[in-house]
Amino acid sequence: MSEPALGVVAVGNALVDVLAQTDDAFIEQQAEAHGMEKGAMTLIEETRAIELYNQIPAGIESSGGSAGNTMAGFASFGGSGGFIGKVADDDLGKIFQHDLRSLGIQFDTQPLVMGAKTGRCLILITPDAQRTMNTFLGASVELNAEDVDEDLIANAKITYLEGYLFDREQAKQAFIRAAELAHNAGHRVALTLSDPFCVDRHRSDFLRLVESHVDLLFANEEEIKSLYMQDNFDDAISAVSEHVEIAAITRGEKGAVIITKGEQIKIDAAPVDQVIDTTGAGDQFAAGFLYGFTEGKDPETCGKLGALAAAEVISHMGPRPEAIYKELISKAA
Amino acid sequence: MSEPALGVVAVGNALVDVLAQTDDAFIEQQAEAHGMEKGAMTLIEETRAIELYNQIPAGIESSGGSAGNTMAGFASFGGSGGFIGKVADDDLGKIFQHDLRSLGIQFDTQPLVMGAKTGRCLILITPDAQRTMNTFLGASVELNAEDVDEDLIANAKITYLEGYLFDREQAKQAFIRAAELAHNAGHRVALTLSDPFCVDRHRSDFLRLVESHVDLLFANEEEIKSLYMQDNFDDAISAVSEHVEIAAITRGEKGAVIITKGEQIKIDAAPVDQVIDTTGAGDQFAAGFLYGFTEGKDPETCGKLGALAAAEVISHMGPRPEAIYKELISKAA
Repeated sequence: MSEPALGVVAVGNALVDVLAQTDDAFIEQQAEAHGMEKGAMTLIEETRAIELYNQIPAGIESSGGSAGNTMAGFASFGGSGGFIGKVADDDLGKIFQHDLRSLGIQFDTQPLVMGAKTGRCLILITPDAQRTMNTFLGASVELNAEDVDEDLIANAKITYLEGYLFDREQAKQAFIRAAELAHNAGHRVALTLSDPFCVDRHRSDFLRLVESHVDLLFANEEEIKSLYMQDNFDDAISAVSEHVEIAAITRGEKGAVIITKGEQIKIDAAPVDQVIDTTGAGDQFAAGFLYGFTEGKDPETCGKLGALAAAEVISHMGPRPEAIYKELISKAA
Repeated sequence: MSEPALGVVAVGNALVDVLAQTDDAFIEQQAEAHGMEKGAMTLIEETRAIELYNQIPAGIESSGGSAGNTMAGFASFGGSGGFIGKVADDDLGKIFQHDLRSLGIQFDTQPLVMGAKTGRCLILITPDAQRTMNTFLGASVELNAEDVDEDLIANAKITYLEGYLFDREQAKQAFIRAAELAHNAGHRVALTLSDPFCVDRHRSDFLRLVESHVDLLFANEEEIKSLYMQDNFDDAISAVSEHVEIAAITRGEKGAVIITKGEQIKIDAAPVDQVIDTTGAGDQFAAGFLYGFTEGKDPETCGKLGALAAAEVISHMGPRPEAIYKELISKAA
């Protein structure tokens, strides 16, 4: 078998972010009226997306989506990759396509021609740099098993699955197909849990996926505790260590823990002058880790690359790199 | 006659900016092949817009347009205003509408339903913080005299016209109508020349407009020299002083000169820690000046407000305020 040409192919939601700054009072008022959750992601339907958009301040649009952000970071490290996800044939869809392709990411999933518009995430940033996300998935959830490009998957060392996609049944089928294709080709499958509430909604499916199909698991502290329904972090990581080759668990300013072969490796958070916007921290940690992994680095170096990328992305607005991550590599060595 | 409820109504191009960072080599290569001009604005057609977009890096989208930016700054000072301009009924059009309305700006021009898409400006930012603009005007140029809302104009102290609109004949008609409505209502007309090349293309029309209809003229050094075909700045300002009540001429880091009643008032540029992106400097100078003027301030204070707003906008990416300009007012006093 020849060496795959790509490092990572991601399967994820194709979303454009709308970033706007609000105060806590606005979040509280919306939380009361609509169940918005500060610091977390709430799924919304199209009518609510329009209503909420009409109430928020002027925004900045930029391509987002958890796995899309990770692939932008992965490309910034110098990795070559692909993306599988569904946009509509509209302005926002063209923006999402352009922004990934301009980074050299292969992205050829057919846009949805009739039906939902391109998905978007209304991200409200409060003065404490927390982001509160309201996602209208739109065309994203029309991704189905036929969109999973067999050749692309066979050509990548790692197939990386975004947990957020689990919110629709046919996307779950696409996940299973992608995982099976990757393993049949002798490659690895990675999963990011994405969100504790998403894990809550789909716990048994996530557990089945992790146990049967996942080699590398990315999660934060809340997500891994939610997956195993453990209040205690150590109990949660002892549970996960039985099921996956490597688990990389991020802990915000406490850094991260890598669990592999019964071992725990602590990774310190990289220093940041000023935290501006925490959007994309987990996505960029995954980018750095995946880049290190596909380059054959040891888990500790992978974790350090993740921490450096996460530190860069929280030092500015927006979930994708401003710096060139390739230049961070020497720092991690 | 009762006091108008609005400070300023702007008539301008409705454009969404796509900001992307490139190096000088890319600009040079494009300049050679397509006539792009570093630091200036080049008009492009839709096919060229698509071709160029495919070649530039991932971008950030945000509402722009010279007069739209000025109105965003004007609202940030606490001014109330309106906007007249043409978007299409598409995603970018909805973004442009939202971003102005969310600032409290009245904007009710009917979107174009069939035909061109919402206009956009591909802005390439080089490491020296210069911006090179490539504008596809799209639906913007479909603005016509019927779109000029008589009640809105009659209700504003100043009608502010964006010179860029002069690139299409029917937009010139809309300008004349707006100017006549404003003067009939006993109010003032302001014009920004926008771009030396735009002035070059339409010099005689601009001169007629300035001589017959304009009370306040905004321009930079290159534009005013181009208008009067003078190599010497002093000759250009002596020409303009004969035709308008006030001319506010910006000179980049040299600050600005206000010409009024045979007097020249020098305004120093406000200090900036680091120039990140000069996009919007002229637009925000106009915002500050117009706000001061509608509040009855003397020309020097108006100029200082303009300089403070310009200094804020060049200290970050993007052509609209990040800070709240209302908070700058005490600094100018």
